[in-house]
This record gives sequence, structure tokens and C-alpha cells, in this order.
Amino acid sequence: MVSRIRRFSRAALAAVASAALLACIPAPSPAQQPASLPVARYRDAARRIIAAAMADTLAYSRLATMTDTYGSRLSGSPGLERAINWVLARMQDDSLTNVRGEPVMVPHWVRGAESATLVSPRAWTLHMLGLGGSVGTPPGGITAPVLVVNSFDDLAAHAAEAKGRIVLFDSPFPTDVPPMEGYRRNVAYRGGAASAAARVGAVAALIRSVTPHSQQTPHTGSLRYADGVPEIPSAALSVEDAELLHRMQDRGEPVVVTLRMQARTLPDVPSRNVVAELRGSEQPDQVVVLGGHIDSWDVGEGAMDDAGGAFAAWEAVRIIKALGLRPRRTLRVVMWVNEENGGRGGRAYRDQHLAELPNTVAAMESDNGVFRPDGFRFQGTPAGLEAARQIGSLLAGMGAGTVTAGDGEADVGPIVREGVPGFALNVDDATYFWYHHTDADMMTVINRDDFRRCIAAMAVMAYVLADLPDPLPRHP
Amino acid sequence: MVSRIRRFSRAALAAVASAALLACIPAPSPAQQPASLPVARYRDAARRIIAAAMADTLAYSRLATMTDTYGSRLSGSPGLERAINWVLARMQDDSLTNVRGEPVMVPHWVRGAESATLVSPRAWTLHMLGLGGSVGTPPGGITAPVLVVNSFDDLAAHAAEAKGRIVLFDSPFPTDVPPMEGYRRNVAYRGGAASAAARVGAVAALIRSVTPHSQQTPHTGSLRYADGVPEIPSAALSVEDAELLHRMQDRGEPVVVTLRMQARTLPDVPSRNVVAELRGSEQPDQVVVLGGHIDSWDVGEGAMDDAGGAFAAWEAVRIIKALGLRPRRTLRVVMWVNEENGGRGGRAYRDQHLAELPNTVAAMESDNGVFRPDGFRFQGTPAGLEAARQIGSLLAGMGAGTVTAGDGEADVGPIVREGVPGFALNVDDATYFWYHHTDADMMTVINRDDFRRCIAAMAVMAYVLADLPDPLPRHP
Repeated sequence: MVSRIRRFSRAALAAVASAALLACIPAPSPAQQPASLPVARYRDAARRIIAAAMADTLAYSRLATMTDTYGSRLSGSPGLERAINWVLARMQDDSLTNVRGEPVMVPHWVRGAESATLVSPRAWTLHMLGLGGSVGTPPGGITAPVLVVNSFDDLAAHAAEAKGRIVLFDSPFPTDVPPMEGYRRNVAYRGGAASAAARVGAVAALIRSVTPHSQQTPHTGSLRYADGVPEIPSAALSVEDAELLHRMQDRGEPVVVTLRMQARTLPDVPSRNVVAELRGSEQPDQVVVLGGHIDSWDVGEGAMDDAGGAFAAWEAVRIIKALGLRPRRTLRVVMWVNEENGGRGGRAYRDQHLAELPNTVAAMESDNGVFRPDGFRFQGTPAGLEAARQIGSLLAGMGAGTVTAGDGEADVGPIVREGVPGFALNVDDATYFWYHHTDADMMTVINRDDFRRCIAAMAVMAYVLADLPDPLPRHP
Repeated sequence: MVSRIRRFSRAALAAVASAALLACIPAPSPAQQPASLPVARYRDAARRIIAAAMADTLAYSRLATMTDTYGSRLSGSPGLERAINWVLARMQDDSLTNVRGEPVMVPHWVRGAESATLVSPRAWTLHMLGLGGSVGTPPGGITAPVLVVNSFDDLAAHAAEAKGRIVLFDSPFPTDVPPMEGYRRNVAYRGGAASAAARVGAVAALIRSVTPHSQQTPHTGSLRYADGVPEIPSAALSVEDAELLHRMQDRGEPVVVTLRMQARTLPDVPSRNVVAELRGSEQPDQVVVLGGHIDSWDVGEGAMDDAGGAFAAWEAVRIIKALGLRPRRTLRVVMWVNEENGGRGGRAYRDQHLAELPNTVAAMESDNGVFRPDGFRFQGTPAGLEAARQIGSLLAGMGAGTVTAGDGEADVGPIVREGVPGFALNVDDATYFWYHHTDADMMTVINRDDFRRCIAAMAVMAYVLADLPDPLPRHP
């Protein structure tokens, strides 16, 4: 998860539009108002699904095998393609239907060797990660005095001092708001530091990693270069090291850093969205989409962000099938590609399935980690929200039944904006950003029982959405 | 802090003996029973001390300057000696008395370049730190198949498979007990892995880092080689990487690692305990010792372990002096050297001050981080404990007044075992082991207000101990 925030100018506007949709649409007319849904008839199925999910071991085992074996899966990497092949083969093993990779051209950024070294006032190897999409430095690196600023405004106030320097934005992650809101505010520095610094003549831009907690942990993620501004190298330092340089500047010490980055962007390469289905028994052309993204950053093994979400959706469908619970409509697992640095998978899915979108009755994504779920964030009409809440009541017993209007995840965004009701699995994200886009995004983050709860929640919600007599009302 | 646990065979026995002392000594006779101490007369002084400490900025500023400027301070390193020189100069600035470095010969272990690389089943750079005191590998490193075990018992059960292998002990930090107890149990692997593995023919030993929480964070610390057993290289992996290798073995995958370590032990070198005094007004030959250790591991900047504790003691005395509160007895700040990998400073202090120990009325150390304090752990007689509790009442208002019988810190151990009543500042150590002996032991860990509370608690307790009409009763 991240793109919906990174692509502020578009996704944020869409989110606002979506919220406005819910707020401003008049109350549904009686014809639109969902009658009390026949949720009671699904109690037994829900109980069986939850029991199977809470006893599940296959999904964790597969998640570990895939992430441990292929490692991180940045768009363009061989590991991503091998991981996709492995998943497709296992989906065939599960006897899912229409198992396929749908072609998507993806960007191909490579990190290469990189380092940042404090040269003055003392030698120290800084804990850093280059930002995705960054250009590299010359082979000998860039050695320059550092200007530390608190914010974009602070840079504006010290613009005259920036020329020829490496600018470091030491802007702390707000911790007086929920983590997602803190991220939303703080990530502007990751995206915008390079061009803001370049505009005032800086030779490189560093940021304090976007996180509320650090153990010398640098966090990567995408930057975006503004049009018409020189593209300068940009990297994230750990919180500790950003604060170290800030204190040194505050004491009047000359802070000099050498930044070396071999980062470069190669031509686009072909990749794939992963798709597999459990065909519906009565209306197979009507589809409930559920998934996560298969790509990750090129650090750690991308277990949390987002193999866990993608595999939870997959296991949800596999369990429904294994229980013999074939719903009226089709359940379609989608593992989108290139969520992290392009969003090409989500847009390609929309474009390739455009004719089918009127029959796509819901689109669900898990991309906030498979931590303990409490329910779903819903994007759609008030009547759709009410219907989703009624279905959510089947998950109340396991504490995962709360459905609220709220932001959706990135990959389903393109089809939700076409009118498909959207569901985002909502989890306890208290520690999500500790690991986000770091080398610590490993299987260790995955709690087996919380993962099982995520599988159960997605399975029950998706199954009922796919089996109800009538689909959810759509937004315009 | 760590030595009291690491040197299990001696310090642990001493701790047991100390606990037995409190448990078994008969209740004091009326002559020994402290009358109700004249604590009330110190209320105004305590109030002034606390107010000054809670408004203090100098200690934090000095702590940051010293740690940022000289970095980590392992025994034998140039940074340690430069840091000691800087502290001695500032103590002179403070017009403290008898400011001096007392000579101590210290071990000189150097890490050199090091790495651990997963070769099979896939390439991966492991997150590692060599253990202090380890021998190095041959220049080309050691490449060998890995045997992962859960425990010493598990190794015994698989001893026949260990020959020629690198043994990895993946023993989790117990989290169902307080952190210090979890550490006590888990650290046996850090100390003993190398010799246990060597006994069954292993070529190197790895451990899972001794910590309840990780963000790909390796933790160093001392090992000890058993006599008569080959000395093999030993290093800690991050929790995530230890679990990764364990899962690979469980799946039947051949796990092969290349370990490269240039570690070596050089001849002992001279260093110093740092000492400074506020001389007593009436009985200057009677002394209250308070301090922490100036050395650290060779990672991070040793801000938490233990520059914070040492500087809290220093600032406590400086504040008392600045307030014009000269106690009857002498307050002596001691910053011991070589706590981390030898304990030479604590023993040298005892040996150099042996004649003076009967007049040393208390010895206080902070070495568990300068997190929020709740009081002190006391080592001594029941009457001494009761007296300490009465003094603690002066700190109840700030929540730092609880005095319990309990383990002392390492550096004061040698003189506490000679009969000096011991005080260990007791803090909220919930996150202490997250940062312990890692590159993340930086100023970022230090919370300004908690640090001020530590200064206040040490200052009030030390001042009253130094000014009471009678010293605390001593144990035999």
C-alpha cells in the first residue's frame, strides 16, 4: 500500500471525490434502499469458512515458501517473474479456473550499489536507502556540505544557502494522529524532496525516513520528479542518522556527506497480473474481485507489503472451494503487479476488463498488512455501505465486522472509480509503518493467527457478496 | 548493562548470595534498626533538586555532543580515550574536585570487516554482527552448510550432524517474563554458542540476536570461550534472518552460508576510570559513589548503554553543587571503563580504593538506560533497605520513589560485594533490549524528560545518603 497517497494529485482527489460521493448523495429512495439482506442464511457457511481459515496452515506455508525462495519482487526483477510463475503453478494445483498471467508493461528501476557516508565532522556510515525512481550520482559520488531543514517552508526560508549543497529534510512523522494520517502528511517529503531541493540549486536531496519508529531502519519508496526541474539523486536516511546530522548542524559543525548511487531506470519490461477464478454457479459473468499486489520494493522479502494480502485473498477463495461452497457469482483472485512504483497493474486490469466492469459487483483489496483485522473500509453508495454492514455482522463474532466509509487501496482504485463498490481490509496498523518498504519486511512480521483472521474476513465477505440474490448497488 | 548476567558463574552467584543476605539475616536488633530517618528535613532540598533537574538542558546537550562527536567507545578504541579527555575537561569546567582518570588496563578486541552471506538456497546478505571476543575467520571466510537448532539440548540431539557445519542457535527471547529475566535466559546462547558448537565439531557458531523485537537489527555482545575447546568464530544474526534460515532447513532446503570476520584480540592497552568529586563539608573521607560506564560496544553511539547513565550521575552532582547544597560527605562521580567486555574498570576501582571502602557509604549505578525511573533496586541489609525506602519517599511525588531489594549493576558489584550498600536506578526497560548493543543505540533513544527524571532521582537519593547524620548500615 502506498500509491494512493504517493500519487497525491490524482488518487487523493479521487479519494476526496469518493468521500464526497458518500456524503452528498441523497438518501437512497425506497427502491434503492437494500431490503434487509438474507444474511441469516449465510451463518452456517460463515461459521464453516471461519473455522477452516482459523485452522489453516497452507497459506502461511505458501507465503513463507514464496517470499523466502524468491525474495523481494520489484517490477522488472527476475525474482518477481519467478514468483509469479510459482503462484500460477500452485493455483493450477488448486484446480482454480482461468488461471493466467495478464500482460502488463512495467517500469524497470534498478538500485545498484549505493552508500551515504558522513565525512565531517566525523566518519560514519549512514543508514540509507535510495528512493525508487531516483537518478544515480556520478561514479565518484557527490560530496557536498549538507543543509538540514525541517520542512518545505524551512527550505524556502533558507533557499539562499541550498545552492551546491545536499539538502536533508528532517521532518518527523506526526504521531498525534492515526498512523495512516501521519504517513499521508509525512510522505510528501519522500515524493517531493528532490525537486524542491533542485529548484533552489541543491545537488542531492536526503529525507528522514517516513516512519514513526526506527532501529536504524531506512525506508525506501517512490519519489516523483517535477517537470522542468533538474533530476537530482535522492535517498532516505534512518531517523537516527537524520537527527544526528541535524544536531551537528545545530551545534555549528560543518556537516559533509558523500552520496554514491548507481540507481538507473531501464526500458519498461513485460510482467503480469496474476488471475484465477472460482466460477459462479448461476451468474458466472458477474464477478467479485479480491486480491493484493504481488510486487514489492527491492528490500526485505515483501511479506507484509503485500504478499500477505495477496495470499490471504487467494486462500480465501481456495477455502471456499475446498468447502464446496460454490457461490452464484464468480470469485476472482487478482494479484496486481507494479503497485509500488507505477500502479500499472491496477490500470491494466481496468483497461483489460473494461467491458466487464458493469458486471463486477465488488472489488476488495488487502494492502495494509495482514495484521489483526477489524473489518472493511467501503467505497460506494450509502445503500451499499448499509448492505456491507449487514454482511459484516457475520464477522462480528471474530471482531472483524466493522464496515466504515473510507479510503480504498491503490490497485482497485481504477475500477472503483468506474463504479465498482470497493472494499479495503481494515487492520490494526499500529506497527505497519515500522516495517514499510524496509529490509525488515520479512515473514517475522506475519502473525499466524492474525493472517488467518484476514483470510476469514475476506472469505466471508467475498463469498456472501458473490452469492446474494442481488448485487450491491453501484455508484454512478 | 550486561556484565552481571554475562559473567554468570561469578556475578550470578554473587547476586544469589546478595539475595540470600537479605532473606536470611535476622531482623536487625533495635540498635541496628534505623530510627525513623530525618527525611522531612530534606524535603526542601529535594524539591529544589527535582525542579533543577526537570528544567535541565545541559546534560542532554553534553550527552549529545559527546556521543555524536566521539561515537562508540569500545575499550581500546581511540574514540573512548578522546571521549574521556572531553569529559574530564568539562568536569574541570564545572569546578568539581579531584577530577582525574584512574589508570585501568583494558582488553583490545577489534571487529574488522565482517559479513555473512547466504549462498544457498538463494543469495541474501545476512544482517549480522560478530560477537565481542570472537576470533576471525581465515581471509577467504568459512563457507559451510548450516545446522539450525533451537537450543543447547537440540544441539545435543543433533550432535552427529554438526561436524564441519556452521551451527545456528535460533532460540527466541522469552517474552512471557520481564525483559531482564528474558535476557538472562536468552543470553546464555550469546556467551556459550561458540564453545558448545565447537565441542561437536562445528566450524563456526551463529546465534539469533538476543532481543524481543527486531527490525533486521543484529545485536553484539561478549562471548566466552570455554577452556580446552577450539575457538571458532561466532556472530549474531538478526531475528528475521535466523528465522529465515530455520524455515529453509525445515523445508529441507540446503542452507549454506559464507562467514567472513577479521575480528582479532590485540594486546591490552591503558585506559581510565573517570572520577570527579564534590567534597563533603563535614566528613569528606566518607564517600557516596554514583555513576555509570563510559565505554560502549563498537556500534551506534552508546547513548543508552551507558553514556546516559554516566551523564545522569554527573549532572546529579553538578546540580547539587550549583544549588549550593554541599552535603556532609563526599559525592563522587565515577564513569567506569570496560564494563562491556571485561569489567576491568569496576574491579580496578575496588582494588585502587580498597582502603577507602569501609568509608564508602553507598554505591549507585544507572546502567539500564535512562528511561522513566520508578526508583531503585537495593543491595544490602534489611535495615539499609528500610532506610533507602524512607529516602525514596522524597521521590514519590515524581513516581521514582520505589526501593526494592534486587540485582545491582555490574560496575559497583566488586565494591558491593565488599560490604558497600548498592543502589541501581530502576527504569521502565520495556524497550531496552530493542536497542541494546546495536547500531540503533543512538541519541534518538533518549527521551529528554525521562533523562531529567533519572538525574533527579539519582541526585536526591545520593544527596540525602551523603548528608544523613549516620551512614546506612553495611552488610558483612
